Amino acid sequence: MIYNTLESPSASSGQKSVLGLTCEPIQYVRIGMIGLGVRAIRAVQRFMYMENVEISGLCDIVPLNVIQAREILIKYNKPEAKEYLGEEAWKTLCEREDIDLIYICTDWETHTPMATYAMECGKHVAVEVPAATTVSECWKLVDTAEKTQRHCMMLENCCYDAFELTTLNMAQQGLFGEILHAEGAYIHDLRERILSNEFGMRRGGNWQTQYNIEHTGNPYPTHGLGPICQVLNIHRGDKMNHLVSMSTKSVGMTLYAREVYGQDSPDAQYKYCLGDMNNTLIYTEKGKTILIQHDIFNPRPYSRIHLLNGTNGYTQKYPVKQFAFYPNSDYVLSVEEMNELLEKYKHPFLRDIGEKAEAVCGERARDFIMDYRLIYCLQNGLPLDQDVYDAAEWSSLVELTEISVKNSNIPVQIPDFTRGKWQELKGLNFAG
Amino acid sequence: MIYNTLESPSASSGQKSVLGLTCEPIQYVRIGMIGLGVRAIRAVQRFMYMENVEISGLCDIVPLNVIQAREILIKYNKPEAKEYLGEEAWKTLCEREDIDLIYICTDWETHTPMATYAMECGKHVAVEVPAATTVSECWKLVDTAEKTQRHCMMLENCCYDAFELTTLNMAQQGLFGEILHAEGAYIHDLRERILSNEFGMRRGGNWQTQYNIEHTGNPYPTHGLGPICQVLNIHRGDKMNHLVSMSTKSVGMTLYAREVYGQDSPDAQYKYCLGDMNNTLIYTEKGKTILIQHDIFNPRPYSRIHLLNGTNGYTQKYPVKQFAFYPNSDYVLSVEEMNELLEKYKHPFLRDIGEKAEAVCGERARDFIMDYRLIYCLQNGLPLDQDVYDAAEWSSLVELTEISVKNSNIPVQIPDFTRGKWQELKGLNFAG
Repeated sequence: MIYNTLESPSASSGQKSVLGLTCEPIQYVRIGMIGLGVRAIRAVQRFMYMENVEISGLCDIVPLNVIQAREILIKYNKPEAKEYLGEEAWKTLCEREDIDLIYICTDWETHTPMATYAMECGKHVAVEVPAATTVSECWKLVDTAEKTQRHCMMLENCCYDAFELTTLNMAQQGLFGEILHAEGAYIHDLRERILSNEFGMRRGGNWQTQYNIEHTGNPYPTHGLGPICQVLNIHRGDKMNHLVSMSTKSVGMTLYAREVYGQDSPDAQYKYCLGDMNNTLIYTEKGKTILIQHDIFNPRPYSRIHLLNGTNGYTQKYPVKQFAFYPNSDYVLSVEEMNELLEKYKHPFLRDIGEKAEAVCGERARDFIMDYRLIYCLQNGLPLDQDVYDAAEWSSLVELTEISVKNSNIPVQIPDFTRGKWQELKGLNFAG
Repeated sequence: MIYNTLESPSASSGQKSVLGLTCEPIQYVRIGMIGLGVRAIRAVQRFMYMENVEISGLCDIVPLNVIQAREILIKYNKPEAKEYLGEEAWKTLCEREDIDLIYICTDWETHTPMATYAMECGKHVAVEVPAATTVSECWKLVDTAEKTQRHCMMLENCCYDAFELTTLNMAQQGLFGEILHAEGAYIHDLRERILSNEFGMRRGGNWQTQYNIEHTGNPYPTHGLGPICQVLNIHRGDKMNHLVSMSTKSVGMTLYAREVYGQDSPDAQYKYCLGDMNNTLIYTEKGKTILIQHDIFNPRPYSRIHLLNGTNGYTQKYPVKQFAFYPNSDYVLSVEEMNELLEKYKHPFLRDIGEKAEAVCGERARDFIMDYRLIYCLQNGLPLDQDVYDAAEWSSLVELTEISVKNSNIPVQIPDFTRGKWQELKGLNFAG
């Protein structure tokens, strides 16, 4: 009864699994940045604080963005980076011989074409979320990584947030028992930011508005899903089998545009396919479930939920941090007890680099830890924390949820992007 | 693509809708109680504080339970009630001429047979949750109420909890805008209570354990669903169309029995069909969604969630009471602001009877308000707050969720128990 019309391509003869992929250490990492909007400018800033890293190329279609990035390099007395402008300039950047890593922060629909091209040019890739917007693109990422034996890491920064890291550590040490159910979300009222074009323009207009007009389901599942898949060892002993997804009608964005820009404004005329609230339920091979929510059109406080429901304990991060453990199911730890616990099980990444990350990035410390780990693993020839299968699995929800929503919330199969090798790795182990 | 093999029976010629049903006022309400376990003994206590109410009959299969109830009547100097013992004695009670209301607090599977028999005997009925365990039983309740023109109210007490009542009032006054999504739950670690037989024995054993061995899905959906259906005006302008439901495997109960009673104990040998965590998503005719969760097997703090997600505001009750309103999406009201708001929109029921309810029942005040309203409406010939369609709709999830879970989480149609009349009532209006 599970819907499965999307073809899973077979592997071509020249490709080989990249599970646990290690590559030659790169002592001095030369980075080419594609897309220099809000996210990338912050990344450039972060790289200023890392050793044996160089921004060697800067590429955007908006000259002002490139200038902004250039000014950061100047401010920090860094070597000049070559600059790339124009629609196809990113290809020239990928083709350079003296680049190790392509770092992609463009609009969603250019992520996969750029990532695959970069890998084909022999580069490792770091790409913003979601890495792909269709299942076919997810397969392209996997197949290209397997053919080229290059790293392709999706920049899922929420996996590096302090609470997520520490509860992952607790989960790995068995504090929650067997985790049977987990919840994640991206609940973030983005209406003002989207309409004010904070995310930049593409295709002659606001690309995110365009995407929301054309698509439903959950277009942005990875912030909630990533940390949960890590806890549940997805493709490291378990795998996501199928999902059902349900959306409300679309109301909030149009209402907002009418109120802020007026009934007759162009913004108020758009008809959105994207429903206000999406709920997705995922079933895993080991009989566990995941709930993922998405809502960017309603007045709600920011939430990624991050709830873990185990046989021995429970935690959730939003709307309030809580822990409870067997046998005192109804006893929620006091703030003091919770802080003690969080300190005791503080994730090694936080002990190693947490202080510096906070000093440089404040409440965005997770971004620093993410980039730090990416660079550290490349410099030491270690497997990355997130691999291309993570990128594919987490991003595949973009299309799979839309299929379910458009077909009366029918169950839809989630491809096994490891092609049967999901039990080879025994649990998630960060290299180092 | 929506699964619909359950037949919706056609109405017989002798029956007529009971939407907004009014009956002759009953100035002095004579009650026959069937099932005198934990819940009913508390109800008998509550009736001691109500005027023009008499407990006229007491029925149970366990003599000790009847004695316990009798002693309450003696303590409060009330007229003696006739007593009924034995498997079929409840029928004799229902057949009495001098009874107005049959109040049923037995195990789940006897609710509908008793409720329908009582209505056929011309009695009004109040029945514990869930009122039915199959869709066929739901139809029997509806059809019997329509044939006999008797009230059949399910005793969904969570509809009378202070926060639920006040947020309902706020919703009806438009504070949340259009409510697009709502969440409810029954998360309650009941393992100790179930195994210690707190809920009483039936069929030669623990009836709840037996039910959990035989069934999956969400067997107990109404506490979370009831208050939400009231907010969303279900069968009063909107209706639930279909659902998808997903359960984890069953782990927690067996684990608990092993730990507490030992690996070789009889309790540790049961194989449960009921998964630990169930998630159900419901889609309504007006494009809204409902999430309902159920977990009684894991160590988690009690929660019914009670989240309302509207175009103008948001609230949730568990794990922490919160409100946020447009345009300050990220601003959660302070405790002072919240208390002020709750006081300002305090539901009329709480103003009328809240203080007495708390004096009599403490934190179970909702039970008092529920019974008070039931008696008040009967005494004044008013429509009850919850009608037989509510009982059927909310209880129908017991079987419908199980069908979905057993069929790969496929979408399953929810019957329209009003047979097309769900738009006749314009919103929920409590009579008074």
